[in-house]
Amino acid sequence: MTSTVTYQPTENELRYTFGGGPAVAEIKPGSLLVTSTQDCFGGAVLTVDDLPSKVCQAFNPVTGPFHVAGAEPGDTLALHFAAITPARDWGMSATFPHFGALTGTHTTAMLHPPIEERVWRYTIDTAADTVTYHARRSDHTIVMPLEPMLGTVGVAPGGGEARATIVPDAHGGNLDTPEIRPGVTVYLGVNVPGALFAIGDGHARQGQGEVCGVAVETAMNVTIAVDLIKGVTTPRPRIETDHRIISIGAARPLEDAYRISQHDLVTWTAQLTGLELLDAYQLVSQAGRAAPGNVCDPLYTMHAALTKAVLAGASPYGGVHQRLRHIAEPTR
Amino acid sequence: MTSTVTYQPTENELRYTFGGGPAVAEIKPGSLLVTSTQDCFGGAVLTVDDLPSKVCQAFNPVTGPFHVAGAEPGDTLALHFAAITPARDWGMSATFPHFGALTGTHTTAMLHPPIEERVWRYTIDTAADTVTYHARRSDHTIVMPLEPMLGTVGVAPGGGEARATIVPDAHGGNLDTPEIRPGVTVYLGVNVPGALFAIGDGHARQGQGEVCGVAVETAMNVTIAVDLIKGVTTPRPRIETDHRIISIGAARPLEDAYRISQHDLVTWTAQLTGLELLDAYQLVSQAGRAAPGNVCDPLYTMHAALTKAVLAGASPYGGVHQRLRHIAEPTR
Amino acid sequence: MTSTVTYQPTENELRYTFGGGPAVAEIKPGSLLVTSTQDCFGGAVLTVDDLPSKVCQAFNPVTGPFHVAGAEPGDTLALHFAAITPARDWGMSATFPHFGALTGTHTTAMLHPPIEERVWRYTIDTAADTVTYHARRSDHTIVMPLEPMLGTVGVAPGGGEARATIVPDAHGGNLDTPEIRPGVTVYLGVNVPGALFAIGDGHARQGQGEVCGVAVETAMNVTIAVDLIKGVTTPRPRIETDHRIISIGAARPLEDAYRISQHDLVTWTAQLTGLELLDAYQLVSQAGRAAPGNVCDPLYTMHAALTKAVLAGASPYGGVHQRLRHIAEPTR
Amino acid sequence: MTSTVTYQPTENELRYTFGGGPAVAEIKPGSLLVTSTQDCFGGAVLTVDDLPSKVCQAFNPVTGPFHVAGAEPGDTLALHFAAITPARDWGMSATFPHFGALTGTHTTAMLHPPIEERVWRYTIDTAADTVTYHARRSDHTIVMPLEPMLGTVGVAPGGGEARATIVPDAHGGNLDTPEIRPGVTVYLGVNVPGALFAIGDGHARQGQGEVCGVAVETAMNVTIAVDLIKGVTTPRPRIETDHRIISIGAARPLEDAYRISQHDLVTWTAQLTGLELLDAYQLVSQAGRAAPGNVCDPLYTMHAALTKAVLAGASPYGGVHQRLRHIAEPTR
Repeated sequence: MTSTVTYQPTENELRYTFGGGPAVAEIKPGSLLVTSTQDCFGGAVLTVDDLPSKVCQAFNPVTGPFHVAGAEPGDTLALHFAAITPARDWGMSATFPHFGALTGTHTTAMLHPPIEERVWRYTIDTAADTVTYHARRSDHTIVMPLEPMLGTVGVAPGGGEARATIVPDAHGGNLDTPEIRPGVTVYLGVNVPGALFAIGDGHARQGQGEVCGVAVETAMNVTIAVDLIKGVTTPRPRIETDHRIISIGAARPLEDAYRISQHDLVTWTAQLTGLELLDAYQLVSQAGRAAPGNVCDPLYTMHAALTKAVLAGASPYGGVHQRLRHIAEPTR
Repeated sequence: MTSTVTYQPTENELRYTFGGGPAVAEIKPGSLLVTSTQDCFGGAVLTVDDLPSKVCQAFNPVTGPFHVAGAEPGDTLALHFAAITPARDWGMSATFPHFGALTGTHTTAMLHPPIEERVWRYTIDTAADTVTYHARRSDHTIVMPLEPMLGTVGVAPGGGEARATIVPDAHGGNLDTPEIRPGVTVYLGVNVPGALFAIGDGHARQGQGEVCGVAVETAMNVTIAVDLIKGVTTPRPRIETDHRIISIGAARPLEDAYRISQHDLVTWTAQLTGLELLDAYQLVSQAGRAAPGNVCDPLYTMHAALTKAVLAGASPYGGVHQRLRHIAEPTR
Repeated sequence: MTSTVTYQPTENELRYTFGGGPAVAEIKPGSLLVTSTQDCFGGAVLTVDDLPSKVCQAFNPVTGPFHVAGAEPGDTLALHFAAITPARDWGMSATFPHFGALTGTHTTAMLHPPIEERVWRYTIDTAADTVTYHARRSDHTIVMPLEPMLGTVGVAPGGGEARATIVPDAHGGNLDTPEIRPGVTVYLGVNVPGALFAIGDGHARQGQGEVCGVAVETAMNVTIAVDLIKGVTTPRPRIETDHRIISIGAARPLEDAYRISQHDLVTWTAQLTGLELLDAYQLVSQAGRAAPGNVCDPLYTMHAALTKAVLAGASPYGGVHQRLRHIAEPTR
Repeated sequence: MTSTVTYQPTENELRYTFGGGPAVAEIKPGSLLVTSTQDCFGGAVLTVDDLPSKVCQAFNPVTGPFHVAGAEPGDTLALHFAAITPARDWGMSATFPHFGALTGTHTTAMLHPPIEERVWRYTIDTAADTVTYHARRSDHTIVMPLEPMLGTVGVAPGGGEARATIVPDAHGGNLDTPEIRPGVTVYLGVNVPGALFAIGDGHARQGQGEVCGVAVETAMNVTIAVDLIKGVTTPRPRIETDHRIISIGAARPLEDAYRISQHDLVTWTAQLTGLELLDAYQLVSQAGRAAPGNVCDPLYTMHAALTKAVLAGASPYGGVHQRLRHIAEPTR
């Protein structure tokens, strides 16, 4: 029988870095974690009049970190997302000063005044599986599919570092990719004893690249099946779905995020299939898929994906995705 | 009744620049063009022993340019691709010295010797709709869907420029996006009298980003319904499908290709729907899709796409896509 | 005795591309060319009320192209700038919509409205060797050294291309580096018969990177000693001064301009000194200098420089710089 | 009379992050600090046979952090470098796998095998003020000027972050700019109580951009006059010399490091002189200097500099540079 850890954070327990603080709970490999996440505004943006730059002290709180029993540097953590469900019937988005892809920022520094800060409130209908947009300067209302995801999933980085939760990198973090949705398994290399993973930043849906810098932000109820793959390293965040394997790169400029993700996918494919390296490079060149996660965070992210149809039956990480799917099944 | 221009180029008639040469034929708006394209190697790579750096004098020949009657700077050319069909039962791919995303190049200059130049020969089966990969260093054979497309579609640039056909930019050119497939309409701003459009670089299929720099290259038979939208400018290449509108950016670094494409999609959406600009920015942030075309050419390309479901029935360019689709129907 | 070609262009003879047009004059290797250049505004900006976007039809006219007798692809053209002297006692600068490093542009596309277009008029005093800045919104007047240079020096590109004169690349063009000053020799690889070099875009002075996108633009009187090095290729623009060798890279992102320039400097140093490649890499790492030319043009430029003190007496291109300096001496 | 703190770290006291650990000593504003730094290899590379990837466990140790009495977020720390003197008569450099500007790296990920790891040992002669290079594959010996500098100077970042000492950013860190030399004052914004500054990574000399990724690394004896400017923020690292003001940007791609540094220099110049913002932009465009510090670290750095001659007598930070220079004078 599967053991379950239930943890609901209080506001004071939310964290703003990966690394740098003690665990909130311990989880044994093979267990389920039932928890929840606050939105990226810490719940402080309730109406279109709550400008984030005025009402928020910090951004992107995460739930955790969780200590995984037995996890050591050199292992791989597997997090299977059994459920990611909006905990509210509304979500918020915004433009934010000097943030987003189509505005000058503190790094792409420009002499323009910031673009107007504006807030949008979305209606979320979990029964109908919809997210509804309401324009601010006209009467347009547009219904879109509900596609819940978590923007931020990561472990503590190594080398004594502590990174703001807004940052994506090799330790995971603010990957902001719609690929982290219910039913997938995320793989993260362990850098410190216990792995110390944390999650947050739920999105009711998100465009690819998150062009204005903010998705449809909402609190989420999350169920995760947790496992540990001993003695197997994972250099960069990876995702497995029923049908695809996915590598994620985080870097600037964006082509380096592309390079990292494709490089990892090529070498992973070579390892899984036995294809020689350039033969795998060629295969990915014709069969590979790619898309941006965010083009606004401190590092940009892209994913590289390959259908399992071309993997000749290879089973990543010894079939852990299928096993966790099975453990998670009763919870769906 | 629709008039049809048929043009089959001889080897000597192929061109290697957009701009800089006279038209090969004139086409009236509302006509069909039935033509063909050579592969990016000019047909010189026939076996895995034909290394492109040895057997090719030039790369990426195009068929054209075609003079469109009445086209003037400030107009928009609409090219509806009724058919893009492999003209052979084989296609070639390769790694090429100092070319591709995972190797040092002449611009991302490095001290490494070039990666091995290697050629792959694919089998194309148009009846089964498949492309088959054959590994070079093992016995792997992998069957993938046939997804024919044209890598290169463009018009003459303005200002007296002539650009190598390997280059994508505002005039189109080597966009290398799988979105230019049968059934879509490509929109290009006209820069010179007659537009002088040309096409080439057929791919039996291509991964997103074309990571090794070369797709499954093959000759194509192509049928295009050609039209002209007078007095309407189009700043960057756009595509319309039955279900989506798409903007294409070409730039380095890759985030600028993303920015160009998203900026065009946001402003186009605002114009089509009547949404105020930031309201359109917000909508695209949640509903938009994005992917790289190439991350290897002199400029990288990305596309930004939006489902027509969120456009509230707006009809781009006065419905020309539907009209051309109708003209093209009998030819499918 | 040195033969001299004198050529003063009329307004109609100015060109706006490298490549794509016939030569205006022929020059024999070993000759002097006495000519002049118009400013980047074509002389149309005379007062601070002449906004370039209103009064200019085109930008960056060049004088030429000049056909160099006997020049063939595979040769190197050597242009020794004996004199670059302001032809006026005033120069103009400006901010320009969507142009410059600290503003959104058509490629770094943003939703901001353009920054204000504003013109500054500088006083040039060739007797005192000064350029004087006059603030537009206050009474500040600031005197700076006169440091005349040419922003644009190039040859026709190969492959049938014609490039706008605003573009820098392997053919030279709008390099916008203060290193092209009186007393230096510029080396350019020849791509077409006759080389077809042209010059323009004089600056009374310029900051490194030309951050607002426009220098102190003025017309120049120019004297060049022209020579040809047969059978020696030069892949990218190079400069030789009495004390330094310099390689120039043009690319985006800026690190690629850095890479190109440093790569060329490392390989050139290895060739000149006999140092093994990584030994040359190490030497340049400790002794090399680097700076941006422009961070605003279609491609950014950086130069890499090395003092001849570390070259152990090696003489680039067989001593052509010293010979041309000698030829040019009487003209100074 | 000036009080002096003397601190010589043991090997165990060296740190590898900014932030995340307690101070090693407290310093009162107006005091002198006499200390020393280990080289970036932790002193483990002694001969050309000591490959860093084999003999080093960690890289870039710093001395500190030092707690500055009374420093609070919102203040500016001023560090005047009275002396930076090599503590040895030798220095080491190296190529390192997947590190440097002309090689594939873990972020500019490529399929090439790493470039050869090789070590160079330099002779340092402080009496003659020289650094001598010895080639590894030939007999070349080249003498260069000794130009001691510190590559790494920073404070603890805010927000609970701890950053590896290899990283440069707004908190300073591994800036790797030759501008941090004896006689200059470095300004850093304070993010945490006590500022917690640390220093390290001495270079006997360094090329601009540090192209191979490693300078002439050596231990240093360092004397610093420390001061605190209450209630004045400094967004990014700045440097003041007797003749220039300098802003430093750290970012990828390199143009963003350029943008940050130029943006800070423009706004700083406007503030110091009273020039309106675009007038300051124009002035910097013609008078500004720029150069890369590193083009190899996790973030690249560039500096933007302006001669004080154009500042009309303005005195940055109320003249603290002159005061600290005076305090430091007896120690030179």
